[in-house]
Amino acid sequence: MAEYDAIVIGAGIVGLSTAYYMKKLCPDHRIIVIDKMNAAGQGNTAKSAAMFRCFFYSTTNLRLVDTSVEFFKHVQEERGVDLKIRWTGYLWLFSEESYNQIKGVLDTMSRLGLQYRLYDEKELADRLGLRTRVTHDEEAKLMNLVDVYKGIFIPKAGSLDVDSLVKFYEAEFMKLGGEISYGTEVKSFVVEPRLPLGIPNEPYFWQESRVAGVITNKGAVKAKKTVVCVGAWASKLLDPIGIETHVKPIKRQIFCVKAKSEFLSKLLWTKGFNREGCMPFLILPKPKVYIKPALEEESFWLCYGDEFPRAYKLEEEPQPEENFYKYGIYQIVVKYLPQFRGATYSSAFAGLYAVNTIDRQPLIFEENDLIFAGGTSGSGIMKTDAIGRIVAALYAEKQYATLYGGKEFKIEELGLKKRKIEPEKFVI
Amino acid sequence: MAEYDAIVIGAGIVGLSTAYYMKKLCPDHRIIVIDKMNAAGQGNTAKSAAMFRCFFYSTTNLRLVDTSVEFFKHVQEERGVDLKIRWTGYLWLFSEESYNQIKGVLDTMSRLGLQYRLYDEKELADRLGLRTRVTHDEEAKLMNLVDVYKGIFIPKAGSLDVDSLVKFYEAEFMKLGGEISYGTEVKSFVVEPRLPLGIPNEPYFWQESRVAGVITNKGAVKAKKTVVCVGAWASKLLDPIGIETHVKPIKRQIFCVKAKSEFLSKLLWTKGFNREGCMPFLILPKPKVYIKPALEEESFWLCYGDEFPRAYKLEEEPQPEENFYKYGIYQIVVKYLPQFRGATYSSAFAGLYAVNTIDRQPLIFEENDLIFAGGTSGSGIMKTDAIGRIVAALYAEKQYATLYGGKEFKIEELGLKKRKIEPEKFVI
Repeated sequence: MAEYDAIVIGAGIVGLSTAYYMKKLCPDHRIIVIDKMNAAGQGNTAKSAAMFRCFFYSTTNLRLVDTSVEFFKHVQEERGVDLKIRWTGYLWLFSEESYNQIKGVLDTMSRLGLQYRLYDEKELADRLGLRTRVTHDEEAKLMNLVDVYKGIFIPKAGSLDVDSLVKFYEAEFMKLGGEISYGTEVKSFVVEPRLPLGIPNEPYFWQESRVAGVITNKGAVKAKKTVVCVGAWASKLLDPIGIETHVKPIKRQIFCVKAKSEFLSKLLWTKGFNREGCMPFLILPKPKVYIKPALEEESFWLCYGDEFPRAYKLEEEPQPEENFYKYGIYQIVVKYLPQFRGATYSSAFAGLYAVNTIDRQPLIFEENDLIFAGGTSGSGIMKTDAIGRIVAALYAEKQYATLYGGKEFKIEELGLKKRKIEPEKFVI
Repeated sequence: MAEYDAIVIGAGIVGLSTAYYMKKLCPDHRIIVIDKMNAAGQGNTAKSAAMFRCFFYSTTNLRLVDTSVEFFKHVQEERGVDLKIRWTGYLWLFSEESYNQIKGVLDTMSRLGLQYRLYDEKELADRLGLRTRVTHDEEAKLMNLVDVYKGIFIPKAGSLDVDSLVKFYEAEFMKLGGEISYGTEVKSFVVEPRLPLGIPNEPYFWQESRVAGVITNKGAVKAKKTVVCVGAWASKLLDPIGIETHVKPIKRQIFCVKAKSEFLSKLLWTKGFNREGCMPFLILPKPKVYIKPALEEESFWLCYGDEFPRAYKLEEEPQPEENFYKYGIYQIVVKYLPQFRGATYSSAFAGLYAVNTIDRQPLIFEENDLIFAGGTSGSGIMKTDAIGRIVAALYAEKQYATLYGGKEFKIEELGLKKRKIEPEKFVI
């Protein structure tokens, strides 16, 4: 039976950045990443809109994202790895009521030095062809839509190519001598007493026990530490050994609409917001449907993160729902952006968010030689570099992780026992 | 389709006390309790050790339990309903190390007026035939056992007959005109828009939606409010509509050992602790195996609440595990109480705790016309009267519930958003 210093379960973005920083911190350790898929980042990592924004009220969020994005920038600009970063910016639309609620928060964020620019109703209408007043419309009223009052443009924000990022971490990990075994699915954990006595079916509860590896479809793999980075699959894997992760899976759908018509093409290539010369990532006021400019494909990605009565449900291949577009997203988008009138989607996909139902922030802790990193709740990619460094520092038995740029991060702030996170007030 | 003011799902102890107080607060409301079983309290309620103690550090716990136990006492002594309350007391054994940790807490509790009596090692040995020093024994050392240093006896504690209590609440609910439908299993919830528009597959996410009842094996039942009191089944029922309860099920096993031998009979009928003239409910120091004197059956109930690697797992009929007794509980008990030498169990059963994995306290909240009450984490019966009153007060749209004896309880303290609970420092 193979014995490693560490097994990392999951070759998604979190697993690979974690494995890389573990190997970097502990170059002599024998570390293996295993994943049931046949390549890196093929699970829910691949289903992301892959957007980022360095604009958060919670300093925890801000540190995680800002250092990660600075690192991505460094990789692309100084190390010459094309992550296809597009600095599209975020344009967040607010009704008068919600703007007044967020105004104080915005002032605080401004004092923290966070850059943003306000657009008023008229500017938004002129630049984007946005219908800012919709509530005179009977249908819009029935749909509980609201009028647009302001737009907040966040310049330090955009998209990247997650596949390139995944491959970057994978390659760096391999360069350091890391091992990866694809097509390797975890069936269960090996739990052993720290002091085996040879009694049938041990460990018993009076013994101190630990996770000593995993049983996979290819056999057992043992390790001193088992690092679990499985996203939405957390409960499914860890409930059987009674480790609570507070993670529930929820479906998220993305519908791709080609910018074929003249109107849509003009919208996609809206000038004046960013150097890309494109429409920023746009967030409608309520419901917060969002639209990503997908420049390579000359298309828009339309999405909405619905809650009640959306199920918490684990699925191998979650499917996008035609009606969710047709009676949901489309109906809303077309009220604000008439350019979408008649637009159908050319493709669609669905993935699962790994929601930490306590506070929707990442959770990183160690219990019984098992290290858990997850609950990224839809913002895992934009935080992934920081998360990888923090998990690796926990693995290396440190108290602080050094994030990109040299800032220290106290690991226990993302743990369960001494968790210390300000609630995010600026949420999609 | 039948339409009610309220459906209460679950005729366990929490569901029935809740239904009773709802009907009492709102006598004109048409309220129905439904349960998949064919009688009251047949699920995990029936699998409890049914112990109570009015001795908690958390004032929340103390208020919930103390007022409930005072009510049980009132029912038995003043209303003439025999709940078979046995004031056996709890005798909690501590090692020197753990006693020193708990000492400060004990002083605080003493100042709160909570009664207890300390026993030293010698008294415990003399009265119970307890082996207080076990660590000279090689086996006990391997099992990580500890020497007994002190015992804390809590007089306001004991057991009751849960079936009698369940039947009491059921009868009171029926007397007020409540309806019950047994053999009625919930398949799913009816979710409707508040303002139906007649669009296929509504509600859509831009509509405000609510829970409007349930689909059962006997058809749909609609109601203005749906009250969910399903214990360990919470996630299974509510995940499909995305309502997070933070409840996970965990198996708990009870092994019944007859006090057949002279030694065991003498132990069971140990004098000097209580008016029953029996051994108190005994909690061993570490692991905290506990032993209930089951007087009616002339036996002991032996139990241990194990955690890692015990699975969080929902089972219709969880089974007790022979090895859990043979290599687990028995091995520990016999080290401290040699009277158990050779004792086998005559019967055993297992049930599921509904663990609130956030703080192991009850959780009561309303979302989208659904009221949830659960997560009682093994102390639901002893808190049930207070819980029923609190849920009923929430149903009646009050801010405070009046507990037995007249004390007010702020409902939101048990909710999710404004939860306010001191961590319990005195836990089994």
